[in-house]
Amino acid sequence: MYKASTQVRVRYAETDQMAYVYYGNYATYYEIARVETLRKLGFSYKSLEEQGVMMPVKDLHSEFHKPATYDELLDIEVTINSLPSVRMLFEYRIQNESGELVNSGSTTLVFIDMERNRPTRAPEAVLKVLRPFFE
Amino acid sequence: MYKASTQVRVRYAETDQMAYVYYGNYATYYEIARVETLRKLGFSYKSLEEQGVMMPVKDLHSEFHKPATYDELLDIEVTINSLPSVRMLFEYRIQNESGELVNSGSTTLVFIDMERNRPTRAPEAVLKVLRPFFE
Amino acid sequence: MYKASTQVRVRYAETDQMAYVYYGNYATYYEIARVETLRKLGFSYKSLEEQGVMMPVKDLHSEFHKPATYDELLDIEVTINSLPSVRMLFEYRIQNESGELVNSGSTTLVFIDMERNRPTRAPEAVLKVLRPFFE
Amino acid sequence: MYKASTQVRVRYAETDQMAYVYYGNYATYYEIARVETLRKLGFSYKSLEEQGVMMPVKDLHSEFHKPATYDELLDIEVTINSLPSVRMLFEYRIQNESGELVNSGSTTLVFIDMERNRPTRAPEAVLKVLRPFFE
Repeated sequence: MYKASTQVRVRYAETDQMAYVYYGNYATYYEIARVETLRKLGFSYKSLEEQGVMMPVKDLHSEFHKPATYDELLDIEVTINSLPSVRMLFEYRIQNESGELVNSGSTTLVFIDMERNRPTRAPEAVLKVLRPFFE
Repeated sequence: MYKASTQVRVRYAETDQMAYVYYGNYATYYEIARVETLRKLGFSYKSLEEQGVMMPVKDLHSEFHKPATYDELLDIEVTINSLPSVRMLFEYRIQNESGELVNSGSTTLVFIDMERNRPTRAPEAVLKVLRPFFE
Repeated sequence: MYKASTQVRVRYAETDQMAYVYYGNYATYYEIARVETLRKLGFSYKSLEEQGVMMPVKDLHSEFHKPATYDELLDIEVTINSLPSVRMLFEYRIQNESGELVNSGSTTLVFIDMERNRPTRAPEAVLKVLRPFFE
Repeated sequence: MYKASTQVRVRYAETDQMAYVYYGNYATYYEIARVETLRKLGFSYKSLEEQGVMMPVKDLHSEFHKPATYDELLDIEVTINSLPSVRMLFEYRIQNESGELVNSGSTTLVFIDMERNRPTRAPEAVLKVLRPFFE
């Protein structure tokens, strides 16, 4: 198992007229947290795409427990529970500054060989940084 | 059961560097389709808020079957399978112009009395337009 | 001179906690109106990119006269005042359902040959549909 | 004169199919930089709204010099050239990690008394933190 936390401050653009974070923006928070989690492992998603592998999202689940509001500094905990194969599962827990659970969710991403436009196995570059946490 | 379809054309702003619709934008497509579905029933979500009831999203599930791309005219079919109580479930199926399934998903919304900031039952104005389809 | 109007309904996602359309979203409204204006002339921006020419924005000016709010049906009038050369200027006037001026602005776009990544002259396909309005 | 810099990393959601930051997202970058600039002065925009004063944008000007791309860490320099009265002008210069100018622009914001929904003078709380830089 691998866990890491990323902070995101709520932007004005992300609020709606309920004065809540618009529900579609949590997908963006998940994306940021995924990328930063990989970066902490020494792995750059950008370089993955440059090497010809992209990771579109296959499914998204999200539970909205409590509204997040403007200017709050949210903590997004990402958990990777298993070594990726052709898919990679990320789980998220978002807390506000008072430690209250705001949102929880998960996404499944797939590895796509961009040249062939076909699913492919997780590249060794990803597996190498993750293996130490799954031994 | 009540079903209705809404069309949305993919905006340039909604694409990402994969040249796909960014996955977070499907939540917006769902929102548009919900509101237009209610409008076809003669019901305005805006007027609901003006009467002091708002409908934040409680959970969101989404499956990405096939990428949607720039300028495509998407068809979003919304299904309401049961009369709402304190919650209201919407199901979505999004197809492209070739009739291929692009995305499917669901959201649960809750009715909130804005003055008391508490869950409330579906207002009679909503139930009245839906009842004929559930008899 | 060529003028055309496009309608856009304000989405919940586009509002902010002032209950106004967030100011960054007008750029998206401009984009939609540009593309629909070209479509009315029989010209598809998507096909332009498929032929290897893209049109990034060079500058943007926007004046916010009156807030636009949720669910309003906005009318965006686009004016093309001159035949494009290496640049193309679009002017915008956005009115609400009461005919009040909400926003006015302009954008300059450039034609880029995607293969060479260099500015290029407006393709004949664009000029052909516009010339009749500038004779 | 007061100057301060804020960093923003480009999100995947902010790119478009040109693989550039979508032009409408610079308005959001400006917003983040404004708020962080005020925060560095010891002033919270959020608390301003809580005290009944909001700052909608009156006009926006933006020049796109060079595309910004995914995962770049942008530096946004904000300049306040004069003490605000009923209006407040912010100027922006955005550079990429190589020190190249990506975008420059400005916005004029107005102070609105939310209760009366009328323009108002810059609150003393804002002037107090800014005066030392304009003496």
